[in-house]
Amino acid sequence: MRKINEECGVFGIFAPEKTDVAHLTYYGLFALQHRGQESAGIVVNDDGVFRVHKDDGLVNDIFTPRIMETLGEGNMAVGHVRYGTTGSKGVVNAQPIVVRHIKGTMALAHNGNLINSYELREALEEQGSIFHTTSDTEVISYMITKERINACSIEEAIGRAVKKIKGAYSLIVMSPQKMIAVRDPNGFHPLCYGQRADGAYVIASETCALDSVGAKFIRDVLPGEMVVFTKSGVLSVKDNCDTAKPSMCIFEYIYFARPDSMIDGYSVHEARRKAGEFLAEEYKVDADIVIGVPDSGIDAALGYAKRSGIPYGVGLIKNKYIGRTFIAPGQKSRENLVRIKLNAVPSSVKGKRVIMVDDSIVRGTTSGPIVKLLRDAGATEVHMMVASPPFLNPCYYGTDVDSKENLIACKHTVKEIADIIGVDSLGYLNPKYLPYLAGDGTKGFCTACFDGKYPTEVPAQIRKDKFEQKITGKE
Amino acid sequence: MRKINEECGVFGIFAPEKTDVAHLTYYGLFALQHRGQESAGIVVNDDGVFRVHKDDGLVNDIFTPRIMETLGEGNMAVGHVRYGTTGSKGVVNAQPIVVRHIKGTMALAHNGNLINSYELREALEEQGSIFHTTSDTEVISYMITKERINACSIEEAIGRAVKKIKGAYSLIVMSPQKMIAVRDPNGFHPLCYGQRADGAYVIASETCALDSVGAKFIRDVLPGEMVVFTKSGVLSVKDNCDTAKPSMCIFEYIYFARPDSMIDGYSVHEARRKAGEFLAEEYKVDADIVIGVPDSGIDAALGYAKRSGIPYGVGLIKNKYIGRTFIAPGQKSRENLVRIKLNAVPSSVKGKRVIMVDDSIVRGTTSGPIVKLLRDAGATEVHMMVASPPFLNPCYYGTDVDSKENLIACKHTVKEIADIIGVDSLGYLNPKYLPYLAGDGTKGFCTACFDGKYPTEVPAQIRKDKFEQKITGKE
Amino acid sequence: MRKINEECGVFGIFAPEKTDVAHLTYYGLFALQHRGQESAGIVVNDDGVFRVHKDDGLVNDIFTPRIMETLGEGNMAVGHVRYGTTGSKGVVNAQPIVVRHIKGTMALAHNGNLINSYELREALEEQGSIFHTTSDTEVISYMITKERINACSIEEAIGRAVKKIKGAYSLIVMSPQKMIAVRDPNGFHPLCYGQRADGAYVIASETCALDSVGAKFIRDVLPGEMVVFTKSGVLSVKDNCDTAKPSMCIFEYIYFARPDSMIDGYSVHEARRKAGEFLAEEYKVDADIVIGVPDSGIDAALGYAKRSGIPYGVGLIKNKYIGRTFIAPGQKSRENLVRIKLNAVPSSVKGKRVIMVDDSIVRGTTSGPIVKLLRDAGATEVHMMVASPPFLNPCYYGTDVDSKENLIACKHTVKEIADIIGVDSLGYLNPKYLPYLAGDGTKGFCTACFDGKYPTEVPAQIRKDKFEQKITGKE
Amino acid sequence: MRKINEECGVFGIFAPEKTDVAHLTYYGLFALQHRGQESAGIVVNDDGVFRVHKDDGLVNDIFTPRIMETLGEGNMAVGHVRYGTTGSKGVVNAQPIVVRHIKGTMALAHNGNLINSYELREALEEQGSIFHTTSDTEVISYMITKERINACSIEEAIGRAVKKIKGAYSLIVMSPQKMIAVRDPNGFHPLCYGQRADGAYVIASETCALDSVGAKFIRDVLPGEMVVFTKSGVLSVKDNCDTAKPSMCIFEYIYFARPDSMIDGYSVHEARRKAGEFLAEEYKVDADIVIGVPDSGIDAALGYAKRSGIPYGVGLIKNKYIGRTFIAPGQKSRENLVRIKLNAVPSSVKGKRVIMVDDSIVRGTTSGPIVKLLRDAGATEVHMMVASPPFLNPCYYGTDVDSKENLIACKHTVKEIADIIGVDSLGYLNPKYLPYLAGDGTKGFCTACFDGKYPTEVPAQIRKDKFEQKITGKE
Repeated sequence: MRKINEECGVFGIFAPEKTDVAHLTYYGLFALQHRGQESAGIVVNDDGVFRVHKDDGLVNDIFTPRIMETLGEGNMAVGHVRYGTTGSKGVVNAQPIVVRHIKGTMALAHNGNLINSYELREALEEQGSIFHTTSDTEVISYMITKERINACSIEEAIGRAVKKIKGAYSLIVMSPQKMIAVRDPNGFHPLCYGQRADGAYVIASETCALDSVGAKFIRDVLPGEMVVFTKSGVLSVKDNCDTAKPSMCIFEYIYFARPDSMIDGYSVHEARRKAGEFLAEEYKVDADIVIGVPDSGIDAALGYAKRSGIPYGVGLIKNKYIGRTFIAPGQKSRENLVRIKLNAVPSSVKGKRVIMVDDSIVRGTTSGPIVKLLRDAGATEVHMMVASPPFLNPCYYGTDVDSKENLIACKHTVKEIADIIGVDSLGYLNPKYLPYLAGDGTKGFCTACFDGKYPTEVPAQIRKDKFEQKITGKE
Repeated sequence: MRKINEECGVFGIFAPEKTDVAHLTYYGLFALQHRGQESAGIVVNDDGVFRVHKDDGLVNDIFTPRIMETLGEGNMAVGHVRYGTTGSKGVVNAQPIVVRHIKGTMALAHNGNLINSYELREALEEQGSIFHTTSDTEVISYMITKERINACSIEEAIGRAVKKIKGAYSLIVMSPQKMIAVRDPNGFHPLCYGQRADGAYVIASETCALDSVGAKFIRDVLPGEMVVFTKSGVLSVKDNCDTAKPSMCIFEYIYFARPDSMIDGYSVHEARRKAGEFLAEEYKVDADIVIGVPDSGIDAALGYAKRSGIPYGVGLIKNKYIGRTFIAPGQKSRENLVRIKLNAVPSSVKGKRVIMVDDSIVRGTTSGPIVKLLRDAGATEVHMMVASPPFLNPCYYGTDVDSKENLIACKHTVKEIADIIGVDSLGYLNPKYLPYLAGDGTKGFCTACFDGKYPTEVPAQIRKDKFEQKITGKE
Repeated sequence: MRKINEECGVFGIFAPEKTDVAHLTYYGLFALQHRGQESAGIVVNDDGVFRVHKDDGLVNDIFTPRIMETLGEGNMAVGHVRYGTTGSKGVVNAQPIVVRHIKGTMALAHNGNLINSYELREALEEQGSIFHTTSDTEVISYMITKERINACSIEEAIGRAVKKIKGAYSLIVMSPQKMIAVRDPNGFHPLCYGQRADGAYVIASETCALDSVGAKFIRDVLPGEMVVFTKSGVLSVKDNCDTAKPSMCIFEYIYFARPDSMIDGYSVHEARRKAGEFLAEEYKVDADIVIGVPDSGIDAALGYAKRSGIPYGVGLIKNKYIGRTFIAPGQKSRENLVRIKLNAVPSSVKGKRVIMVDDSIVRGTTSGPIVKLLRDAGATEVHMMVASPPFLNPCYYGTDVDSKENLIACKHTVKEIADIIGVDSLGYLNPKYLPYLAGDGTKGFCTACFDGKYPTEVPAQIRKDKFEQKITGKE
Repeated sequence: MRKINEECGVFGIFAPEKTDVAHLTYYGLFALQHRGQESAGIVVNDDGVFRVHKDDGLVNDIFTPRIMETLGEGNMAVGHVRYGTTGSKGVVNAQPIVVRHIKGTMALAHNGNLINSYELREALEEQGSIFHTTSDTEVISYMITKERINACSIEEAIGRAVKKIKGAYSLIVMSPQKMIAVRDPNGFHPLCYGQRADGAYVIASETCALDSVGAKFIRDVLPGEMVVFTKSGVLSVKDNCDTAKPSMCIFEYIYFARPDSMIDGYSVHEARRKAGEFLAEEYKVDADIVIGVPDSGIDAALGYAKRSGIPYGVGLIKNKYIGRTFIAPGQKSRENLVRIKLNAVPSSVKGKRVIMVDDSIVRGTTSGPIVKLLRDAGATEVHMMVASPPFLNPCYYGTDVDSKENLIACKHTVKEIADIIGVDSLGYLNPKYLPYLAGDGTKGFCTACFDGKYPTEVPAQIRKDKFEQKITGKE
């Protein structure tokens, strides 16, 4: 059976009184749409009555006016956008999960990936537990419920449960009366909260979602911390803090998060810009123009241009009516889609030596057609700068890096890749710069996909499964 | 929290080899559509891989060609159509339920209602079980799973589990290798099986579904029996038979089942026809024409006409593009809909004394407008004959009889009802005839909705809940 | 180019003041849905502003609450349901047609078929007219507009135009201020009007639509008559009356219209019942039960039973969630659909000699499978009685009788047909009885599809086209 | 009656043999989606048989795989995307228009606006012509058809017709055998053609659509030119060239066209960049960063940064899941949408003096909220540079500039606007630079929306209507 790896976005709102929490959650999820486009869900808590709607698709398509009306008003709501890989589609895995139990109904929205979910699940099943989904979120909900029976409060139950789960989790739990935000001790994925002028607390994967609902950023949830929002106030539980090395996913800065977000105090935009500067420092190329591959190569291109002194220009235009290649499951051919997605700006590149900056190379299948666009438009040379190191290892913490046999860097040297893509030269970001993208190099990051240094143990079983899933593509 | 009372239809197919089980299940569910129009689902078992699709709506709308394609072929499939009362809508409660467990995935389709689900659920939750739905089917799936851990086979687990659940259940369980049909010891609801020319076994709530897929009826599943379909053959387990008094729901014959179905050996059409004959015996009315209210009053009208000697005629035409009032949740006003649903045939009723036969009177809100249609079309007298006794008691076994305060017979005498409806006379079927509708009067039936004689104990809790649910309409 | 033959339904309402004419038209069209299920449209006239919505599909699916809201209120509305043959699908041919012209906007809804539309169209095109559709309605709208230029009123223009068009038309025209109903001099298709308690006049193809909106029938529009509804009152123009022999389509009585409708003073239900009686008179069969094929064989079966003295019974049940075979374009196999559409009632037919009555036999492809259902359910003999004569000729007046090479009666003797269908005996209605189905035999009918006696000239061109269209199926 | 002002996109393909012209047209329209998002249509010409599909919505939503399949293959196709103002919605006005006539079926796709359509329409209606739509395209189709009767070819008819129509038109006409592209003598809107490697000719509003289907640009259609594509080759008719002053809409360069397009030989991207440079020349501001408002302010911001020497940065991020404000009809509040559409990048603007560049200011309602975003993110000063002059006059040639009473520049001085928007300073592009955006200042442009110098006469009627339409918003 295949485990689902998800990069997702979570959002929660805890309002002092009944208000349009569903609409605010809608806007929050819309701001987090880049974190998952496969399915979305909103659960409204109207004085203990939970109303839920989840479906496959984009926020904007799922939450029609009629659906929003049925969700109605409430004092709390939690939402989720999910990115699933091919094969795992289906509304059954959509989140938030709502579970009903004698101690009270509970809704969970989760971003991350557990590394001990197999054992937890096995143990639970041996006790007679049944599972409706293949997601970690259901495992977590069981763990909490098991503890809930003898715990005096939901937060106590969560506190006990999270000590048993291992891996990456940025979690929002909504009970009839409370909302709880929890982040794993490594702090793999972001989670922050803020407050609106009307007093409502807002929890979200990224600050851009706070901004979208007019909430003022208060602070990031700390690695290992649990923050409890109740009518009486906000409570921080730090039992689980400092039990692991901080390991924020560096790929959040490189690609996943929105550039207008601040994560753990550092600007995503700035991190990308710095990547461009580091590239310019390492690779000196004689060229006429620096361009970025929209959207996520733009920031690094600006950094490269600034540091190198070569003028920045707009060389590629993206059709604004298309989505994001990397993230949409089920596309047949990346190559065929490039031409309808991107187009060169002839006046920018004709007769020029072009430096093209992109955020990363995964399979290497899109870069070639883009380079061809530039050459067809008259570029005399194309040099490619990649604002991240080569992908070499799988991720076990919730980001769906492609499988080894698909990763071009696992099979080819940089020189070979340059030839495959058809560029005159190719430069990857030197891994040594990664710690300096956000901060002064002292902050810990998870850079395992680049260097294989996993911040946690990874059980043999999950390594094997991860491998097999990629090989077989079977459930 | 509100329990959902469901009258549903179940269908299963066990084929000797991979074939289009999804399409056959589609046709089977289409034949059972009258048993539930709120949601439907099909689970295909393709050599142990379960593919599922469930949604709100009618079979015909849910299972588009694209969806059918994704379901694909398999060697087994199980399907379900569900009727839920207002408020319980939502695909989350759609069936079949698919549960994943270390001992194997399992799909369940259930028709009926447990009377001890509260206690079972409470006990399960105290052990840390969580529930995604409010349906009994999830309780049953837990019960089976709990037993499964120590049982040597799925059928053994089911056998143990059903001894702990009480109430009404016609159940189909599909495991990776087997299909199991179970019926409660009272045999409240129908369940039968047959075989197609290609060897495939077909299990269904009613014989009409066997007919629709070209399966030849073999026999009814006995009250309390478990029938296990495996590659090696068909096995009957009768441990639980004869542990309770046979109590087939009489309302299946009166209204719920399709007239072309045979239930426990008796024709539904014939039962209705007999009801009409008994009415004619008891109520002699001087009239010119006997008409039936389409669709379910037609059979009894024919019986009345035959016994009374008054000619049968077509006095009311139903717009064939509309659904079935009693069963569709969410309609605003039954009265307003009558005129667009039914129309009188002036040439049949003008200047005539009309005997109008209907299957039952629930709230009494539709009968009045129908009588008005007849009078407007020129009927000089309208006498109403009702092919069932007055509804006086709630049902705890899965048929959604309205609440007492809505049941017109709980609040008014027959004379008063006649006045409210606006008929010249009104006759209900005498309860004494009920045992003779299907059989010679010796077979046991559940007639509790009419006479309050419940064939099982009914815990105080469920009585209270049933009452409250109707009063408050809240979950 | 293929001409579209349509059997359609038209509906119009002229209210004394602004009201919910859109909803009333919705209900009217819903009552006329049997006359056309391919597309539907409503045009609301809100003080001279026309709002229109047309689409492919059923009334109930097309006119969602949101659409109804956009249509809004008005003082007039006209609606249309259309039945198109395969290949002519597409909203472009949906009606009513709205045409904009300097003399005022105009909406037209038309039921029927012109026989001189080719020549009219050719002449118009030679003058530079362009056509957006392939329908007669656009030809008629041009003819009216051409006259409108020099006419002092819309009714004068219509009056002149209809003298130039030949064939079958039951037409409703809505101008900014008036509503006009016109019927061709032969009166091929029905058209009637009535009035609601609020004073609104209602025009419709059949009386059942008047009933559905609570309008009291006033009278049929006479063959050749034009009825003009204005603020000042109702005006009848009879210039064109008595210019042709009354030729009401007999097939309206036999199959097309709803049994609860009265057409030109005669009951549709009664006409069908009489057909059954005439059959019983001509064909004496020794049998145990008379059954009707739902829905349109029921009435005649009752007539046959009454006259023959053989008891009437319910032998076939139709799945109420399916539509009407004859009328739905695009179905792949009539045979395959029979079993999911119909089922036998075993208790009615087992061991019995059955007389099965149906309204007509077209291709003869459905009757065989139905007979098989009965035999499989245990019928010892099956005799078929058909409540109309054999179809032998094409219809040029708007009813889509199948092509000669598909009509079973054109290729086989009655004996052969009986063998093909698999019945013990087969009887068709003797054509001599047709004039007596509605009235005393003195009223004129168009019976051309049975006897080839066309009440108008039929140009060679249209005969040829009709033929070719059937052969080639090409546009 | 209201005239519809449309800015639209047209696309046509003429292939040497039967191929997937529908898919190519789909991609072409997708590339032109920015020119109109209200409705779209494709007409496939399969050896003289025209198959059409048009609907409201985006290309991607309308043309589902099922629809594409029904369109099938052909040797020619023409497509259209339409932008309609509020109130004119509805598929009835969707293009291409298909008209049927004795001389052959014809499909038309039109971008532009006639200034004499009222008189033409009036004259046509007086001759008995009827109109189904309110669009100019139907008028044009009539004009062509009228000429067609006595013309020896479709191109001759078009040639004659276009001499009678006045105003802006970039037109593609498809007949059974030919495809004809025509541009008005002023050349208001762009139209060009190219060729694919397989020999197929492609005509499109912008070069970006040629690129999207892999067609190599050949040349722009000249103002007044008609280009006829036939099996025998490509024919240019220049009768109508040089009959008017070249007057390419300057707003195509400033906002409407895609930056990767070349129009009449000049790069759209470059034109915008130049606008930024001219702004920098005229307005010297002491600032720390230059940012662009996405998407259309980016190019000018780069120009401003380059010329001024102030560094360019990314200060605003647009949610990529939202559409384009200016163009989408029916939005309730531009202000409310800004925050969910745009967000500031705090690391870029915090503590900085920001120069914000946008393409234009229409109502001035969006700029204020954007400035607020920047200030909330910590910008100490915000100076706004607008890459076009103030809008002061209506457009009669097909671009929907807002009405005078809505145009902020008609009601306020620049100083007042700066205060309303809340910026520290505000600079508009000096109109004197407009001729230098594309070319050396010698090429003629229509700049009427800025300076009121209309290149053609504008009849009083159309001035009045244009005015009234804006005031009343009524049809």
